[in-house]
Amino acid sequence: MTGERSTSASGDDFAALQNKLGYQFESSALLRAALTHKSHSRQNNERLEFIGDAVLGYLVGVMLYRHDESLAEDALSLMRAKLVRGTTLAEVAREVDLAPQLRLGSGEMKSGGRQRDSILADAFEAVIGAVHEDGGIQACAAVVEHLFATRVAALDPFDLKDAKTRLQELLQGLHLKLPEYTVQDTSGADHQRRYTVLCTVAELDLQIAATDSSRRRAEQAAAARMLLDPGLLDWAHK
Amino acid sequence: MTGERSTSASGDDFAALQNKLGYQFESSALLRAALTHKSHSRQNNERLEFIGDAVLGYLVGVMLYRHDESLAEDALSLMRAKLVRGTTLAEVAREVDLAPQLRLGSGEMKSGGRQRDSILADAFEAVIGAVHEDGGIQACAAVVEHLFATRVAALDPFDLKDAKTRLQELLQGLHLKLPEYTVQDTSGADHQRRYTVLCTVAELDLQIAATDSSRRRAEQAAAARMLLDPGLLDWAHK
Repeated sequence: MTGERSTSASGDDFAALQNKLGYQFESSALLRAALTHKSHSRQNNERLEFIGDAVLGYLVGVMLYRHDESLAEDALSLMRAKLVRGTTLAEVAREVDLAPQLRLGSGEMKSGGRQRDSILADAFEAVIGAVHEDGGIQACAAVVEHLFATRVAALDPFDLKDAKTRLQELLQGLHLKLPEYTVQDTSGADHQRRYTVLCTVAELDLQIAATDSSRRRAEQAAAARMLLDPGLLDWAHK
Repeated sequence: MTGERSTSASGDDFAALQNKLGYQFESSALLRAALTHKSHSRQNNERLEFIGDAVLGYLVGVMLYRHDESLAEDALSLMRAKLVRGTTLAEVAREVDLAPQLRLGSGEMKSGGRQRDSILADAFEAVIGAVHEDGGIQACAAVVEHLFATRVAALDPFDLKDAKTRLQELLQGLHLKLPEYTVQDTSGADHQRRYTVLCTVAELDLQIAATDSSRRRAEQAAAARMLLDPGLLDWAHK
């Protein structure tokens, strides 16, 4: 806790960070705590990180929920996981130029902790937690909207849809009839039944089979293979 | 979606549920959606469940954060996991008598879905999501406070502390001196060192050893064994 162990976070530096966050703190002590890694002091950012993580999960979840009413729960969960994972939060931390403000112990500083994704992501969560303690959830909502709106808009829901839905939408876009799924074969006793499902795109004369212990999963697997079929890809890129 | 597939949720039934929640809905359609399982309709509670899960994680997290300022991040995470896991949420769903209001498909109804923990927990999350869409986060905070305050107060932070802390607090409570940890032995080359740590409670003439590749973990393991030592337990129950 000597001057050497911390970067001196001058008022000017905090001002730049607060401008990039789009939020002015009442209590700069809260922001300072959020920027303090556990290698620096016992008074560090770990509890604020807990709150920030909870706030981000909630607010990013609501943004996605409002963004696309057609998204099912599993797609919402996947998209949120993409947006709040460590690598994404470290990116956001770099955008707001958080690294120079981090207060690290000397060991972490020497080993390049200032640029480590995990330290940046945790500190970013803690900063959101500090906004929550300083200005409440409405202040957090404004900051998170400001920092994540572009990322939410850039997500491609198509990537997250299941194979049958993707195949259906692709064929609709090509003005082709919907694919048909038929059980070609079942084998095995009741408790270890195997389903072989045939996926047919009649107009392109394509048929692909897949086998699974669940009929539904066999259909999905056949659709996934169909999406990679050269005949279909050729047609799609005509 | 015939009358047979749903329980008729009369206004009276909704009134009872809303009283137990401590919240009156503007839109009873939202509450109805929250109570509709996917086996009943395509218009079901899955998206509301996503929002409710996010809201609960946030609000229960804040309650724990405020509840005990000494709790570290890992203890907060563990306590929250206990409070928002399926079995706990199913308990809360039973307390507010949610089961009779569930709208299930006939298959789920016949197989006892109305009393299944997972269905009750999901529907409870969806009801919290519906409160969020109907009345915002402040309305949710009041409902969650009302339903979880007793559970938060009943959590025993002692259960979540590490073994060394628990041993220390136990000995302090017995007016005994603090335990001592000494490295009795190290073996192995630098990169595969093994530490044997001895934990001593001098006044009770107790000594227990544990070995690990980390000295810190060896201390924790020795403390954990000491907590189970019959000599210590006898003294604690005198």
